[in-house]
Amino acid sequence: MAGGIGSRLWPLSRKVYPKQFHDLLGCGRTLLQQTFDRYSRIVPLKNIIVSTNSDYSALVKEQLPQLSSDQILHEPTYRGTAPSIAYVACHIRQLNPQANIVVAQADQLILDENMFVETVNHGLDFVATRSNLVVVGIKPTCPETRYGYIQAEAVEEDVDNGTFYKVRTFTEKPAYEFAKVFMESGEFYWNSGIYIWNVQTIIDTMTELLPDMMGELERVFREYPNRDERRRRVYDAYTSFPNVSMDYAVMERADNVYLQIGKFGWADLGTWDSLYSTFPKDSNGNALVKKSRTITYNSRDNVVVLPKDKLAIIQDVDDLLIADVGNVLLVCKKGREGDIRKFLNDARMKYGDEFV
Amino acid sequence: MAGGIGSRLWPLSRKVYPKQFHDLLGCGRTLLQQTFDRYSRIVPLKNIIVSTNSDYSALVKEQLPQLSSDQILHEPTYRGTAPSIAYVACHIRQLNPQANIVVAQADQLILDENMFVETVNHGLDFVATRSNLVVVGIKPTCPETRYGYIQAEAVEEDVDNGTFYKVRTFTEKPAYEFAKVFMESGEFYWNSGIYIWNVQTIIDTMTELLPDMMGELERVFREYPNRDERRRRVYDAYTSFPNVSMDYAVMERADNVYLQIGKFGWADLGTWDSLYSTFPKDSNGNALVKKSRTITYNSRDNVVVLPKDKLAIIQDVDDLLIADVGNVLLVCKKGREGDIRKFLNDARMKYGDEFV
Repeated sequence: MAGGIGSRLWPLSRKVYPKQFHDLLGCGRTLLQQTFDRYSRIVPLKNIIVSTNSDYSALVKEQLPQLSSDQILHEPTYRGTAPSIAYVACHIRQLNPQANIVVAQADQLILDENMFVETVNHGLDFVATRSNLVVVGIKPTCPETRYGYIQAEAVEEDVDNGTFYKVRTFTEKPAYEFAKVFMESGEFYWNSGIYIWNVQTIIDTMTELLPDMMGELERVFREYPNRDERRRRVYDAYTSFPNVSMDYAVMERADNVYLQIGKFGWADLGTWDSLYSTFPKDSNGNALVKKSRTITYNSRDNVVVLPKDKLAIIQDVDDLLIADVGNVLLVCKKGREGDIRKFLNDARMKYGDEFV
Repeated sequence: MAGGIGSRLWPLSRKVYPKQFHDLLGCGRTLLQQTFDRYSRIVPLKNIIVSTNSDYSALVKEQLPQLSSDQILHEPTYRGTAPSIAYVACHIRQLNPQANIVVAQADQLILDENMFVETVNHGLDFVATRSNLVVVGIKPTCPETRYGYIQAEAVEEDVDNGTFYKVRTFTEKPAYEFAKVFMESGEFYWNSGIYIWNVQTIIDTMTELLPDMMGELERVFREYPNRDERRRRVYDAYTSFPNVSMDYAVMERADNVYLQIGKFGWADLGTWDSLYSTFPKDSNGNALVKKSRTITYNSRDNVVVLPKDKLAIIQDVDDLLIADVGNVLLVCKKGREGDIRKFLNDARMKYGDEFV
């Protein structure tokens, strides 16, 4: 899934060039490319499907020239993760009605790639023989309020050395006090947004929970076997789909969900705070995103992102987010996630789409 | 005089594009052009001479296409204001041995242009008939520590409505306590750096105070009547001249100096603090240099400069200098004038001339 505009990372993530197309870690590969590389170790190249907004299909092709155009599915408009996953599931069933699927996010940091590959392979084995939906959960290392939490049933099931729990509850981003209790209880895990399931299981579950959308999709796939025609028809239908997330519309309501524990070192890179938490810091706690060249004096716990070839001099400031990206410079206190969208909206109100 | 690199305004003022060539006030004319416009009301076009570093002669020609190349004098290297003024004086005497000269700085803000024109004209009248050096002084409006101060003798001389005092002392940038006493005494004026004199008076005075340099200059002018040859010879001699300021080498030592009061609203634009003091501010005290487009939230007393077409979002920060210019972003507390050169030097040490 590589279709979001990443507005919580504005102005780094921009409508015309969202975060997944950036080399955010300064390693020479964009987040999309890193995700591709990671899953190439699990899935044959021909079985990798990228779902993106039609605005970004040229960027996807450019960054992943290995993919044929059949492997890129376009959404005409953003409708959340549930419609996107439903469309891809129908598409994959057309190719192979027995397929097992892992749904990948293009904006995640994975530290131990070997452990990650092993985990996903165990998950794929698990769903191959059971009609269960699997979500990968990460043992919390701090009471993070930016993540969703998943509560596991105490009963653990070991399958081929993978650890799976039946899911009891999903909780959206909790307040700090709750996050603390969740973490201490030992029953809660961060929701990684990595899902694993058999194609028939997810289609059956979504047909039950989102019957109108799935009915329409199934009809289009049935009535238009020609690929191009089908694409156009899905395109037309897409705007009528509800704008809902997979967790809200499906995972929280389904009764066949398992949690698989991931122990590979994981972080979401969707917000400035997540970048700050994730990035290596200098001895004063300053995180330099994209290896930004910065000379600091008496400055602590800042996060700085600059264009390549630019130099920042930072003196006597603490806890700031300093993001110099394209035609926008943002200087504000860290840890105010909610304000980023306000800035973006105010810029749009005042100046139109120039800075979006 | 338009030859400085303006390092106290780094990174706005850059070696390849110093502040005098910027439209700092966002009015459509650069500081150099504004200075030219201002003096065009006093001096015939053909009598305006621009003294600059040879690196900037193309910029001067580009910004002042009205000037012939005879009117631009090149210094091969920066040696302070005294050698520069001496060279120009010798050049002007060659053109007209009776000339009266006003020495202009290209980085000043003048509020009342009519009053300014009147003042300079009175000054030129004053020096036409007396062997005195005149420096224009500004009545302090605050105990500013960024300026030099000139103490006047109590005895005032009125000439054609211009007010002139004999000078008692020059004081370089004073500590705040002194500046306060200076201001309260009523005897002290800010040194504007605007000098007025007859060409023979300044050459005689400098010959007395800087005999080696003046001897060399006089010799070159005497021995090389051909303009191009003379320019080359001055060029060669220039590097051997002492690096001294006019105030230090001449004005503080001469005994024929008068202070003329300027009441036209004046500010030096040489430092970030001076820009902050000078610029119009929004209701929260934020100064937006070059009309930088900025949306502020809960932020006070900042100075912001941005590229045209860029937007800054500033939240929860006070008293910062935020300068985004070319390949450098500077974020630091205001009011640390001395640190700017340190930043520039550290950038040079670490990265070479890329950011100078």
